[in-house]
Amino acid sequence: MTKHAMPGEVGNADARLRARASRVVPGGMWGHLNAARLPEGYPQFFASAEGCRIRDVDGREYIDFMCSWGPVLLGHRHPEVQAAAEAQAALGDCLNGPGEVMVNLAEDFVAMVPHADWAMFQKNGGDATTCCVTIARSGTGRRKVLVARGSYHGALPWCSPSVAGVTSEDRAHLVHFDYNDVASLNAAVDAAGKDLAAILVTAFRHDMGRDLELPTKEFASAARSACDAAGAALILDEVRTGLRLDVSGSWDSLGVRPDLCAWSKAIANGYALAAVTGNDRYREAATKVFVTGSFWCGTVAMAAARATLRIARDTDVPGHLRAMGLRLREGLASLANENGIAIRQSGPPQMPLMLFDGDADVAMGRAFCSAALRHGAFFHPQHNMFLSAAHREADIDAALEAASHGFKAVRALGAR
Amino acid sequence: MTKHAMPGEVGNADARLRARASRVVPGGMWGHLNAARLPEGYPQFFASAEGCRIRDVDGREYIDFMCSWGPVLLGHRHPEVQAAAEAQAALGDCLNGPGEVMVNLAEDFVAMVPHADWAMFQKNGGDATTCCVTIARSGTGRRKVLVARGSYHGALPWCSPSVAGVTSEDRAHLVHFDYNDVASLNAAVDAAGKDLAAILVTAFRHDMGRDLELPTKEFASAARSACDAAGAALILDEVRTGLRLDVSGSWDSLGVRPDLCAWSKAIANGYALAAVTGNDRYREAATKVFVTGSFWCGTVAMAAARATLRIARDTDVPGHLRAMGLRLREGLASLANENGIAIRQSGPPQMPLMLFDGDADVAMGRAFCSAALRHGAFFHPQHNMFLSAAHREADIDAALEAASHGFKAVRALGAR
Repeated sequence: MTKHAMPGEVGNADARLRARASRVVPGGMWGHLNAARLPEGYPQFFASAEGCRIRDVDGREYIDFMCSWGPVLLGHRHPEVQAAAEAQAALGDCLNGPGEVMVNLAEDFVAMVPHADWAMFQKNGGDATTCCVTIARSGTGRRKVLVARGSYHGALPWCSPSVAGVTSEDRAHLVHFDYNDVASLNAAVDAAGKDLAAILVTAFRHDMGRDLELPTKEFASAARSACDAAGAALILDEVRTGLRLDVSGSWDSLGVRPDLCAWSKAIANGYALAAVTGNDRYREAATKVFVTGSFWCGTVAMAAARATLRIARDTDVPGHLRAMGLRLREGLASLANENGIAIRQSGPPQMPLMLFDGDADVAMGRAFCSAALRHGAFFHPQHNMFLSAAHREADIDAALEAASHGFKAVRALGAR
Repeated sequence: MTKHAMPGEVGNADARLRARASRVVPGGMWGHLNAARLPEGYPQFFASAEGCRIRDVDGREYIDFMCSWGPVLLGHRHPEVQAAAEAQAALGDCLNGPGEVMVNLAEDFVAMVPHADWAMFQKNGGDATTCCVTIARSGTGRRKVLVARGSYHGALPWCSPSVAGVTSEDRAHLVHFDYNDVASLNAAVDAAGKDLAAILVTAFRHDMGRDLELPTKEFASAARSACDAAGAALILDEVRTGLRLDVSGSWDSLGVRPDLCAWSKAIANGYALAAVTGNDRYREAATKVFVTGSFWCGTVAMAAARATLRIARDTDVPGHLRAMGLRLREGLASLANENGIAIRQSGPPQMPLMLFDGDADVAMGRAFCSAALRHGAFFHPQHNMFLSAAHREADIDAALEAASHGFKAVRALGAR
């Protein structure tokens, strides 16, 4: 059923939709899903998905290594998640208050995540990070929040990577440090002084376009110690990482537990949901802030989340993702070596990134991805990718076959 | 099937869930759906809903006049909306980009709403109001945003009705005026001076606990004129009102069109979705801001929205809500009169509010609602209520029968 387009060609249906969208959507598309940022030939519009396969509006099918940029953890349309969601939807979704499923899900989080004494739910990852910051400020009565330079915590004015339409006051109380740099972190702690409310940090360093970097134990411990010494909140942003690295929390293996944790993306396998978990130190503060949304108690996404958490925990999804990610990594390394091309692979195997040496303009990364796409693998040249539980060995091997065409395209670039 | 509890009694299942929730959710519940703010006997947890009937976890059924605080426009689980959503869900929801449905929905908005040249989509109402403010600031290169004292535009730090966890800088560039007060509005415009980016205003005044107030033509025109004179954006917040008063926009009948408009709640009949519509003056600014979310392109909510918009437009849903709201209003007036109780009814009939004279502590309002609830009608004593297309004359009449018990309870208060 898979159709292959000509090199760099956007399909006819995709082109027609882009033309229509350009009239009724500013710039044709907004935000991180704007295909204008992607290599040549990448589709903007998608028609369907199942497991680890996605299909664009021209009927071309790809093995998906973006998983909707994170939300799809178990594979698209996972049967058990769908069944749980549909059973809940048959009763009702958006009601005059929460359903029993909210209590069940909060209990699930508290049981699964060692740091968590309680949970609250939202829709966007940015809702969760914003709630954490608000709760930390309320609980400490202070204002300064430390964030790593370049870290992404959402697209609200206080944290957006863009400054268009943002005022300097929106970021007035942010203090920056460099990820994994203890001296820089401590300098920021000193700069915040008695006004330190929180350190907000991603589970690993996943800034677009640069090698991914796991946290050092020293860095994570320093963040915890600094918060303990100052009576400030350690906020772990697990929006991108949650359930992929460790269902107990990504820093649990480092022996570091946050006070507050922001979750979203993968927790309901594609259904719109976010969560904040916290410890008892911040329980009262969490009752004092006013945070809410029209759809935050929607029962269907919560039912999907319960199924997702259960499967992630009971079937060791992080372990499977890791195995598949390692298979992909080893295969890419072999192919690069065979082709005499120098690459760097970084990050946890569950969320891999491959960059080419000497590729400042990403010409090699883009050529690689365009060619692999034409052969049925949907990679990303600069952003960490995502494995799902639906990726099996045969899928990884098929993607490596597509990748072999990518490496040939890179070699051809060098020959020009 | 309807069970009636004893006066003021919360059901056993509800009580058990509250006890469990109190351990794993701060305060047992957060935000506007926290039943602690509601009269005696109101349930916190709901099990199911169909049409204009909701059922709590103890199996008690109510005629619903809150409609999930706005999202449910056509009735819970409207068959055509459910069918559209399910057909889309069978293909896939959260993909690596939008589906064709995003373009269709943007075209639907542009066709339906006279001011709109384009549309963008989000999840929360607060996402939409925040996007509007960000786009206005980007487009004008200015910072000041005028908002009416007491108006609700969401629960983000810049607009939350609470100051817990919020810094003064979050609201540094807000300038306040009084709704429907042209002199106050003009004074705020003067105060903002050359830094005026936008006037952000709800379609009518719906502050909690006070009589609702429709905008005067003079006020709406003054807001438009002030923006035109200053080169600023008029932002209409239709999050609560959208599709209920006028599918063309709530101020269209006043002859006033906004530059930017925030939509959410009812636009997908309970599915989580928000939208910003704008005119061409702000198209370029909308391409420059970076706004995005993991689930903003979810196709299922968009498919639900297409069905909702079509039905709202083709079957004159606002007209039906108005007729049902007038029937409710007339019935309540008669009952109050029969009982010799002085009430005030305000707002558009589609989103009614009934307050009791001399009821500063809301004792009468709460007694009324508790008694009506026991007889099967779910009213609110202080917040505007919501009609839906599923309310028929027989439902209104049954609700009035429940209301008659409410008035008796109020009379009993006076006799004590």
